[in-house]
This record gives sequence, structure tokens and C-alpha cells, in this order.
Amino acid sequence: MAVDLKNADIISTLNDLDREKILYLCAKAKEMHDLEKSGRRDSLANTFKKNEETGKRARVLAYLFYEPSTRTKFRFDTAMRELGGKRDGFAGTEGTSMMKNETIRDTLMMMSANHFDAIVMRHPKDGALQWAGDIANIPVINAGDGKNEHPTQALLDLFTIYMDNNKKINNLNLGLGGDLAHGRTIKSLTFAASHSDNITIRWAADDLFGMQKDLVSLLESRGVKVIREETVEDVIRQSEYYYMTRLQFEKHDKKLSEQEIVAMMDKYRITMDKINGTNTRIMHPLPVNGKIAEIDYPVFFTKNQLFFKQAENGIFLSKALLNEILNHDEYLTFNGRLHEDLQYGNNLLTRDVRKKQKKHLAVETIENGMVIDHLKYGIFDKISQIKINGNPSVLGGNLGEDFTSNPKAIAKIKSNNLSDRIYKTIILESAGQEPTFNKIRNWDIIEKFLYLLCHNDNCITREIIEDVPPKFYNDEGTIRCRYCRQSYEIKDSKVSEKEKQRFLTELPTKVKPIKYEKLIA
Amino acid sequence: MAVDLKNADIISTLNDLDREKILYLCAKAKEMHDLEKSGRRDSLANTFKKNEETGKRARVLAYLFYEPSTRTKFRFDTAMRELGGKRDGFAGTEGTSMMKNETIRDTLMMMSANHFDAIVMRHPKDGALQWAGDIANIPVINAGDGKNEHPTQALLDLFTIYMDNNKKINNLNLGLGGDLAHGRTIKSLTFAASHSDNITIRWAADDLFGMQKDLVSLLESRGVKVIREETVEDVIRQSEYYYMTRLQFEKHDKKLSEQEIVAMMDKYRITMDKINGTNTRIMHPLPVNGKIAEIDYPVFFTKNQLFFKQAENGIFLSKALLNEILNHDEYLTFNGRLHEDLQYGNNLLTRDVRKKQKKHLAVETIENGMVIDHLKYGIFDKISQIKINGNPSVLGGNLGEDFTSNPKAIAKIKSNNLSDRIYKTIILESAGQEPTFNKIRNWDIIEKFLYLLCHNDNCITREIIEDVPPKFYNDEGTIRCRYCRQSYEIKDSKVSEKEKQRFLTELPTKVKPIKYEKLIA
Amino acid sequence: MAVDLKNADIISTLNDLDREKILYLCAKAKEMHDLEKSGRRDSLANTFKKNEETGKRARVLAYLFYEPSTRTKFRFDTAMRELGGKRDGFAGTEGTSMMKNETIRDTLMMMSANHFDAIVMRHPKDGALQWAGDIANIPVINAGDGKNEHPTQALLDLFTIYMDNNKKINNLNLGLGGDLAHGRTIKSLTFAASHSDNITIRWAADDLFGMQKDLVSLLESRGVKVIREETVEDVIRQSEYYYMTRLQFEKHDKKLSEQEIVAMMDKYRITMDKINGTNTRIMHPLPVNGKIAEIDYPVFFTKNQLFFKQAENGIFLSKALLNEILNHDEYLTFNGRLHEDLQYGNNLLTRDVRKKQKKHLAVETIENGMVIDHLKYGIFDKISQIKINGNPSVLGGNLGEDFTSNPKAIAKIKSNNLSDRIYKTIILESAGQEPTFNKIRNWDIIEKFLYLLCHNDNCITREIIEDVPPKFYNDEGTIRCRYCRQSYEIKDSKVSEKEKQRFLTELPTKVKPIKYEKLIA
Repeated sequence: MAVDLKNADIISTLNDLDREKILYLCAKAKEMHDLEKSGRRDSLANTFKKNEETGKRARVLAYLFYEPSTRTKFRFDTAMRELGGKRDGFAGTEGTSMMKNETIRDTLMMMSANHFDAIVMRHPKDGALQWAGDIANIPVINAGDGKNEHPTQALLDLFTIYMDNNKKINNLNLGLGGDLAHGRTIKSLTFAASHSDNITIRWAADDLFGMQKDLVSLLESRGVKVIREETVEDVIRQSEYYYMTRLQFEKHDKKLSEQEIVAMMDKYRITMDKINGTNTRIMHPLPVNGKIAEIDYPVFFTKNQLFFKQAENGIFLSKALLNEILNHDEYLTFNGRLHEDLQYGNNLLTRDVRKKQKKHLAVETIENGMVIDHLKYGIFDKISQIKINGNPSVLGGNLGEDFTSNPKAIAKIKSNNLSDRIYKTIILESAGQEPTFNKIRNWDIIEKFLYLLCHNDNCITREIIEDVPPKFYNDEGTIRCRYCRQSYEIKDSKVSEKEKQRFLTELPTKVKPIKYEKLIA
Repeated sequence: MAVDLKNADIISTLNDLDREKILYLCAKAKEMHDLEKSGRRDSLANTFKKNEETGKRARVLAYLFYEPSTRTKFRFDTAMRELGGKRDGFAGTEGTSMMKNETIRDTLMMMSANHFDAIVMRHPKDGALQWAGDIANIPVINAGDGKNEHPTQALLDLFTIYMDNNKKINNLNLGLGGDLAHGRTIKSLTFAASHSDNITIRWAADDLFGMQKDLVSLLESRGVKVIREETVEDVIRQSEYYYMTRLQFEKHDKKLSEQEIVAMMDKYRITMDKINGTNTRIMHPLPVNGKIAEIDYPVFFTKNQLFFKQAENGIFLSKALLNEILNHDEYLTFNGRLHEDLQYGNNLLTRDVRKKQKKHLAVETIENGMVIDHLKYGIFDKISQIKINGNPSVLGGNLGEDFTSNPKAIAKIKSNNLSDRIYKTIILESAGQEPTFNKIRNWDIIEKFLYLLCHNDNCITREIIEDVPPKFYNDEGTIRCRYCRQSYEIKDSKVSEKEKQRFLTELPTKVKPIKYEKLIA
Repeated sequence: MAVDLKNADIISTLNDLDREKILYLCAKAKEMHDLEKSGRRDSLANTFKKNEETGKRARVLAYLFYEPSTRTKFRFDTAMRELGGKRDGFAGTEGTSMMKNETIRDTLMMMSANHFDAIVMRHPKDGALQWAGDIANIPVINAGDGKNEHPTQALLDLFTIYMDNNKKINNLNLGLGGDLAHGRTIKSLTFAASHSDNITIRWAADDLFGMQKDLVSLLESRGVKVIREETVEDVIRQSEYYYMTRLQFEKHDKKLSEQEIVAMMDKYRITMDKINGTNTRIMHPLPVNGKIAEIDYPVFFTKNQLFFKQAENGIFLSKALLNEILNHDEYLTFNGRLHEDLQYGNNLLTRDVRKKQKKHLAVETIENGMVIDHLKYGIFDKISQIKINGNPSVLGGNLGEDFTSNPKAIAKIKSNNLSDRIYKTIILESAGQEPTFNKIRNWDIIEKFLYLLCHNDNCITREIIEDVPPKFYNDEGTIRCRYCRQSYEIKDSKVSEKEKQRFLTELPTKVKPIKYEKLIA
């Protein structure tokens, strides 16, 4: 079998999985299912136990839930328990307050120092899981990162279809319902499905809950048909599987009250009259929101109900997944260091330095340092508070309409070795505008560049305290954030096509793991 | 031995236990005690472990603590640990917020899908544990449900008396102290004691903390003598065992401040001068409230002190109990469905339809639907907001003194298939009054009934989001809620004795488990 | 080897450890390190497991974290896991609210009843761990008590130096940075280092964060050189190891805002320019505070970085420590009683009764009871609210300048058997003044004494609800609190040197464990 998931990170269904891997995992999960249903629940109970005779090592899983979880956590708990492994970690809202001002970096290094074999983690920030995977040498499984992905939910959903659909996950008509705009589940599920052939996705929802345009176009570029219908009934009638999701209150921008949103959801609820006469299987990651009852109680007693099967299938899939990832007897030892590739980002878009500029900016004020041009008008006061080694170091000001047709701020810092924290502070204050950094030595501009910082407000790279060096990759001509995978559009019209292409050329073309591979046999 | 607790739910000491079962559990708990005290702490450590040679299965317990617990949870933790079993679950206040808007149904189905062998659960709502037992196929142990019951505490208390009293739990003089009005511990303990012969209970307390009348009359109907004394000293002097309990601040109606209640409690505190010269054993479920010190520190050093023994006896009793419940090698497999008996309640009290009424109510307004009569005056505005499939569907109004000598509201709904959520919304708005539902077809009343909803404010059936269909049973002529066990008094004077008796006859006469029995060998 | 840690409490690096024990633990921790690094991670996995053949018992650890912890808890988790032992307990902020009004006494007795072999505990109050050790018969390990000590962190820090410094922990130049005023880590580390020869400690900090005077003088009395330098650079340049610590925001008196403190810390941050050209190892208990970044990100990639090694060394040290403490096959059985030595304090400083006084105080008002003299002026109103057995029992008043040159209050209580709760209430109201208690019988003063209560605001003995009887010991002439170890200065000038010496003579000279030793083989 060519499929090898040994020590693999599972961060994204799009990047870390493919058709073969998914089908292989489904087949392995079915084996787990068959053992349970034939009275052999305990038959794998020694898999992850130490074995004196064979020399097999015990396996230990760490769980790090920065956001509350019951279902996902329990799935992995049960999987480890039934495979005879151990687990430790933290979970719940408590975790988050506990961890106030503690970086993911320090937490992940601590977990690595505690001799775990793999980590399963959930975090509210997009891209936090890719960063966790970069920090930890041991494999990391994404149990949900912000609005980004939730790959193990997607895998168990596909496995449920596989079991219900005669072991096939292609040629499917999938209906999607509920909150399609904010759920990472929808994103990971459709990415996962897009590895199969002949997938049609139908949905009907208000714009507020509707599928996001960039997700739709990415799916379409991968051959998935995405059709928006008028009514939920239209979708259900044409689908073999209708996937209903919870409202993500906590991820809405709070313009509407909970009550208003509940009222809006009323027409999307799955009731008997919507499914009567159909064979459409109703799926749901659960739990149903008791206030909304997006699935009406009588529906629970119909043959259409497939969501409780999903719950158990999650166990089988998690067992299969862990069994593949940890299927080896060496271990990765902790070496007490961060990988050197993590020190710097790759986000400086170098611009050409023209003679004229050299003079203009440099001569006026500083011999050595950094001149930051094209800052947003009015923000100089904030930039001026930046200190270098505790000392005020910023000169400059806001240039209004008296001075220029394009009002802007300009800042001059008496240091040409700015930290990522300072770059990010400046960019975040710039609110979308892209200032130009001019490095000055001996009154001359020796370098000129943009500092690209992902535009996704929820991206982990924008969290200053986390110290994540911004990295991008070249996704077939699109600049994409290594962490949250969102595309980066250069807004600064002064950047030439040549400059942009040069930057793209220097980027890696894929998201490759950053790991020390130090196996001890 | 005729005692069989295999896969038994333990929800109530009154319904799920009897004299033989209690004595049997005490004898088994004593065996656990004797092992510990003779240096054989580890001797049962393989009981719940997988055994390759015998084919014995591993055993796993789920704990679900929706309310904080330390003692009860630790007892079961230790019991499972010492029997070699495993456990997983959630605990603490965190749990409750985490579970916001998640139904017990979904949580219990998830736990069932996670291959546990039994569940121990605590929940703030009365009757939540019976509902949990109905949902789960696996056995459920009540670790406290609201103000209702706490059977395992009662069992360990009786076991403590058994050990101290020469292996006997009859012919006892029990004193009760502390907060007798709000504690589930008192209820379960006295129910449990009522299975024994010749039990006398004495107590002395302000009315605010006093024993509830219905509890006293239920105990008296079972042969227990219940005597209210003037002073705590009177009670202690005449009791072999004095059972002191914590104040249940959180269950009081908050009319008194914590400070006032603490002051009131002062005269009930167990101090040296109250016990001097007696052999009365002082019991307490612990912990003592440090602010009140309802047991004074010097009392801890007397021979009367029995409460720390209770703490350890809880371990022995929990071990014995789990060992009996899980004493089999088959397992209950999860089938992904709710039991069909859970779809509907049995709470429609059918009334006779008289010809005259038919015309009167029906003709005026609707061809098909539901006419709701005798609604509380003034609530029509709220009822009118109910929507059927998202559409306004309610006609009617409030009828004041101009129209009728008994002002009331009347509502007409253009649907004769109301959901339990709508019935409950109407009943809860009616605040104790019992509206009459008239089902109309072709302008005729074809059915007429009351929808009985338990009157206990804290009953799980009144929580709309939980979707619990109301069920009752006929307890020797009393209509009693299947869930919280509170009796239901029909207030509507128009219900005839014949109608009431017909309803009673159709009810089951006992609370029988609802379970799929699907054992896999 | 003479070192014996079997069943030892580890509360303080000063009192419970010595040079031999520390070196022995380092050597044992190195063995744990070597197993991990040579591919034998699992080789001790059966150490704490039941063994049928040898009759070896399983070992179980309880963890009680009243304050949040991740690192310390995980260290012990991993240690137990890798030694094959089990653990149960509670952790987190949740714990604290859960435990509202529950005494440490009741919690520790419960844990003892649950058959654990040892307890690791963290608590916000100074001295709570010594009290926990007194209550529990099983050994107790201090994982941090208030501002007092954190011995296992100190041990792992010394072990890290041991490993980095060619197995030596003497002749060291240690630099200390960060918040030296509030951290228990600093206290335990310097105490631990003070067992070694030729230790020099250097530090530079604002007074707000500076080393406490009494700590410095205690270290100097033990032969440690403590030098305050001008700048952090001065310290780093002269140290082999620079130990940086977090700011203890939560322990500051909140006069400064978080923002102000962050700004103040700026000049103490470890940045590249501070360590460039040095070999000084940078240590830190972790996590770094992400907002302050007291260690700058580039420093993480230098050869100076030693803090991630500390993280893993904590595992090895915890394994070694637990292995020594639990290295026996008997067990301590729970006997359901508090040790009799815990009933009373030893804090009554008896004063001589002179004839004249006898008359003066006694005759005026009461035949039998307690006269409390030299109370702080103005507090009589509060004292008068004290009730004995629910009854008002206090006479007296405030004596102003009209009556006396030293205004004071005086109280007369009609009981001469006051509880510790009442004594403490009076002392706490006295706010540092030391009232004199005169016991009256038949109009005569038969005893006269001060009730000494530790002056440390955060000491566990001052928490009324905890019922800790105050105890002191004679530390070479200094009266020192048994619990928080702070010295007690008698302020009352009327206490004669003879009276003080008599009191000192009656005190024990050391902090000796209070334990029932009841081993079952």
C-alpha cells in the first residue's frame, strides 16, 4: 500500500489528504467498525501498550483544547482508550484564561518536552494549527482552528457516507444547510469531498449564512459543481445527503441579536414536512442547538436520521487515523530547540531602489535607520510611541493636504534592525495600507521593501504576542498565507509586476512541514 | 442470591432499591473494606481489565457532572481505579457553560456512541437522571439530580451505619440536622432507610430548613415514624446517629442573605456542649461549610465523629455497586437510534366531547385546527406570537368581564398537529391554569383534552429546549411524574372523576426502564 | 546510600532538603535522562504498576491545584505516566470556585480516604502546604504555596545546572532577573542553592521588583554572597547562569497598572544586545509573558538558551523524586481521624500574673470569663458582636483620652473557653496590636497571655474558615510560624524578656512532620 501517514500532520483536508489517503482511512475505519459490531470491542486494546516481548513502545496523545469541545475530544479519548494508549492535556474555556499571555510556542514546546507521540489541538485563531505543527516535532492533528478547518470532522462525515453508500464517496449530491458562512466544518468537508469525482453541492440560505465566494470558486476550480437553490426543500429533494450545521453565534459579527438569528433560522429547520417522502439522509455534526432545534424532534425517529451514526463513526475514524500516524516504534526525542527555519519570515517584498528616491528620503534626516513612507495619514502619533530598547526613537509626522495631494504619514526610526513585533505594530496601525520600508545606511537607501502581513483579521500571524514570523507560499501564482491559507492581494499600486513576480519566484510552492526528524529506535 | 443489579439504572433509592438489594450491597461493600484493611488494596485491580486468557472485557465508566462535585466524582474515580477500569467524562461548572443549549439527549447519545459501559451523572434539574436513563441504553447512576435524589450518598451513609452498628440497619433512631428542606441527600437517605423495619426519624429546625410535608407523609405511609422535636439537643439525646447536612444556599429562594442564613444556622451547629455525655455518632456528607462551621472543630477529635469514616466507606460502596452493575461480559452496542417509546408522552387527559360544545367552539372560526379554551386571562398576546412553520397562525383574544363571569383567553390555531414545544409554551404561559385543547376537523370537535405538564418548577419536562415528552405513572391512585416523581393534582374542576379515572387506568403503574436490550457476547 | 526520602513531605527546599539529598536527586534524575536519550523511554513503565508475581503494589498520585498550573501539573502527570502509576485530582481556577467555603482539612481528608499514595498540591495561601502535610498521613509535595515556596521548580532548575555544568552545583555565579520580590520560585531556588558551597547571587532591578531584605539576610546567614548590581548587563556578564522570571502581576498590590508595569519591565528584557558575546546561559521557568516578551524571540535561537532544556529536565527530576518517595510496598491506610496534635496551637505566650492586676481587672465586672485588655481603640463595637453559642456575651467599651493616656478598648466575655475562631477574630480586628487575655475565675485572674497570630497577611493561619491552630517554632531564638515560616516579632513592650524566653523554650526547635505512621504491609 502506498499510503503512508506515519508521523503526518493533519492540518487541512485540502493539503494533507488526497483521494487515496481518504479511501484508505475509510477502509481502515470500517475494520474498526466491524470489530465493534461483531463483539470484539477489546481486540485492539493492546495496540498502543508497551509489550515486553516485542519491545513495542507505549503511545501517548496530548490534547490541547483552547476552545471548548466535547465531541471531538471524546472521540480521541475513546480512540486512544480502545487502542490501549494514554493521553493527557487540557480542555475548555478554563484553558484559555489559564493561558492568558502564554504563547502557543511555549505551550507546544512544553508538550513536546513531556514526551507525547502526537498532539490533537483546537484553537480560536486561523492558522494556529499550522504554527503548532511547525513548532512541535511530533505530529499535530487539527481539531479545529478558528474559521479555517476541522479535518477530522470532515473525515468522519465522509466515512459515514462511505458506510451508508456502499463504500463509495464519489458521484454524490450533497446538500448543505445551516450556517455555511462561518463553519470550519463546511470548509473541511467540501475540501475533502473535492478529492472525489463528480461531486455536486447544493445549498439554499440567506446571504448572511450563505457559502463564501472564495470557497465556492476554489471548489469549482477543483471540479465540484456548486448550485444555489431557492429553498431548502429544493436542496433536500435533489440530495442523497443533507448536511445540516449549527449556527455559529460566537463567530457572527453580532449585528443581529441571538433572538433575531434564531427567528431567521426558523425556515431552515429540518421538520417532518421537509423530509416526508424523501430518502435523503440527514447529517449533522451535533449537538443540535436546543433553542433553535434546527432538527425537529420527530425527525430523530425517522429512517432519514444519520447523525447518531456519525457520532459513533467518529470513534472508528479516529482509531484508524491514530493507528496510522503512530504506526512505528521509534520515537521523536525532544532536543530543546526551535527549528532554525522558524526564526525568520519570508514576507519582505523587495522593491527596486531608484537613485532619485535615495536622495529624497535619506538626506533630510537620518544617517542610519529606517524610513517608513506611505503610512496611513494620521497614525504618526501612534507610531511615534514605538521604543527601541526602551528609548523613544521615532521621528516624522503626518503630511496633510498642504504638503501633498495624497496625505500620508512618514516615520524615521533610528535603527535599521526592526523586530517583527515593531513591523507588525506598524502594519496593524496602517489598517490595510501597505507602507514602504526604506533601510538607510550612510545617508543612502540600501534596501526598500513591503512587509506583507496576512489580511485575515483572525490569522495567527497578526497576533503580536505569538511572535509568528509571517510566511507565504506561491499557490500557482497566488500569494497565500502559510498559516491561514488566505490569499494575499497586493494593494500598493506602486509595486511593479516585475517586483511581484520576483517575490513569487522566491516563495516555496507548497506548504511543507518544518520538523526536526530525530527518531530514536 | 436473588439479587441482580446487572445493567441496572440507579436513579432513586425508593424505586430502584429494596431491603435485599441494600443489605446485599452493604455486605459486598464490607468485603471491599476488609480487603483494604488487611493489606490487600490491590487485590481486585484486574477485575475490570481485559484478560486475554479468559476473554474478559475491559470496563469503562463515563462521568457527566453538570454541577460541581468533588467527593462523589472522586469516589467513583477511585472505585474504577481500584477495580482496574477506565473512565472519561466532564465535570464542573465549566461543563454547564460548555453545554449551553446542548440537550441532555444529544450528550447522552454521544456518550453512548463512545462505548462506555455505564454512566454516572449529576444535573441541576429534577428528573434529568431518569431522562438520561431513558436515552442511554447503558446503565445510568444518579449522582444527584436537582432537589430530587442522590442515591449513592444514601447507600454509603447506610453502609456506614451498617459497619458501626454490628451489620444492622433496622431498629434505628436517626436524627437529622441542617438544611432538611432543600437537600436531595435527606430525601434519598430517608427513602433508603424506609426499606428497613422500625425506623424513627427525629428533627428540630426552623420552618425554613424543616422537612417537607410530602416527604414526611410519604415516609409515614411506608411505616417510618417522623417526630419533630423542640431542640437539636432533644434530637441528639434520643438518636444513635445524627445526620448533619450543609446549607444549600444555592437552592434557597434568596429572600434571606447569606449572612442572615449563617446567623440562623448558628443555633444548629454541632458543638461540644451539644454532644457531651452522648454516644451519638455525628455523620455529615462533607464538606463542612467553613463559614458556618456547622460542626465545630473540637468535635472532629471526639469519639462521636463518624463523618471521615463515611468518606472512605463511599469508596467501598462505589466499588461494590459498580462491580454488581458491570458484572457481565457482554456489551450493549450503540445502534444510533432513540427508543421509539421516547417519541411521545402519555400526558393527554382526554375529556368527553359533548354535542353542544362541538358547535359552540368550532363553528365560529375554523374548519380544521385547535381551539384552546380556558387560557389564563391576559396571556393571549403571548400565545398569538406562536408560529407554525414560521407563519403566524393564531387567532383569538382575551375575554374580559364584559363577556364572561370567568375572564379567560381563547386561542384558535390553524393546525391540529401541535408539537410538544408549542403545547409546553402554552402551558408555561398559563402559569398553573389548565387550558382545554379542542381538536377541530370539518368544523367539529373530534377530540378534547388537557395537556398535563408537571407542576414542579425544576422538573426537566418543563425545560422546552430538552424536548422531553411528559410521562406520568399511576402510583396507587396518584398521578406522578415519571421524571421528578412529584405528584400531579388536577386543578381543573371541569374534569370529571370518570375522566380522571380513565386517564389513570391508561397510565403504567410503575416507572419501568426504557432500554434497547442489545447485548453482544 | 544514606539518603532516604521514603514517604517524605517536600514542602520547603530549606527545611526538607539538604546537600546530599539534592545531589542524590540530581544523580537519579540523570539516570532518567539517560534512559530517554538512549531510546529506552519505556524502560520504567512498570515501576508503579501492580505486579502479580512480586506482589508489588500499584502507586497513585493525587494532584490538587487550587491555582492554575500547566507546566508543574504536566511534569507530574508525565512522571507518573512513564513510571506506570496512576493519578487523579482537580486543577484550575475552576477548582477554587468549586471549593468555596470548603476547608483544606476536609479536602485533604477526602483525598486521604481515596487511597492515594502521595499528594502534589498548589494553593494561593502561604503555609497551606505545611498544613496539608499535617492533615494528610500520606506524603505531600509542594507545587507552590502563595508567595512562599515552589521546591520542585527549584530542584529541576538546579538539575538543569547540574547537567549543563559537568555535574556540579557549587562554585556558581547566578544572576537573577525579572520579578524577584514576589516569586516563590526565586525563594526556593536560592534556598536550594544555599545548601551548596561558594554561591554568588547577583541581581539588578527596581526596588519594586527587587529581592526582599529578609530573604537576602537569611541567604547571607547561610554563606551565600548576594550582590546588587547597577544593570542587567553587569549581572549577565558576571554570571554563568542568568535566571529570568515572569512578572507576578496577580501578586502585586495593583497600585501600578498592567501597562505601567509592562513599560517598567522593558529595560530588563533579555535581548540579543544584552547577551551578545557572552556564554551566559539564560534560564526561565516558562512560560514567557507574550505581552512583555521578557525574553526576545531571537534569543530563543541562540546557544545561550537553556530554558527549553529546563522543561524536559522537570520530567526527569519529577520521576526521580516520585520514585524515591514511593519506593516501598507498604501503604498508609486511612484511619478516619485527625492527628491529636492538630487540635491545639502552641501560640499562647503566658505572662506573669501580678497581684495588683488581679484585683483591678477582675473585681469590677465578672466572676468568671475572659477580660481582654489593650485592644485597639475603637474596635469595641466589632468585638461586641461576637456571640458565644448564639448569645451576645461581650461587655466593655472604648476608653478614650478622658480615661487614659493610651486610648484602648477593653472587652469582658462571659466565657473563659474561647474558640480559636473567636481569638482570631479579635486579633484580626486588632490589626497588629497585641491584646492581653486575662482568664478570670472567682473574680481572680488565674491566667494572662498573648495569643500570637502570624503577621503575614497571606498566611493560612489567618484564614478563619480554615481552623488552623497557630503553631510556632524556635528557629535559633527567632519565633517562626510553622506554616508560612515568617518570623514573629513581639510588639507588646510589656512582655518581659523572661516571659519571651520561657515561651521560646517551650516551642519545638524544628518543623517536624505530624503523621500517623500506620503502614500496612
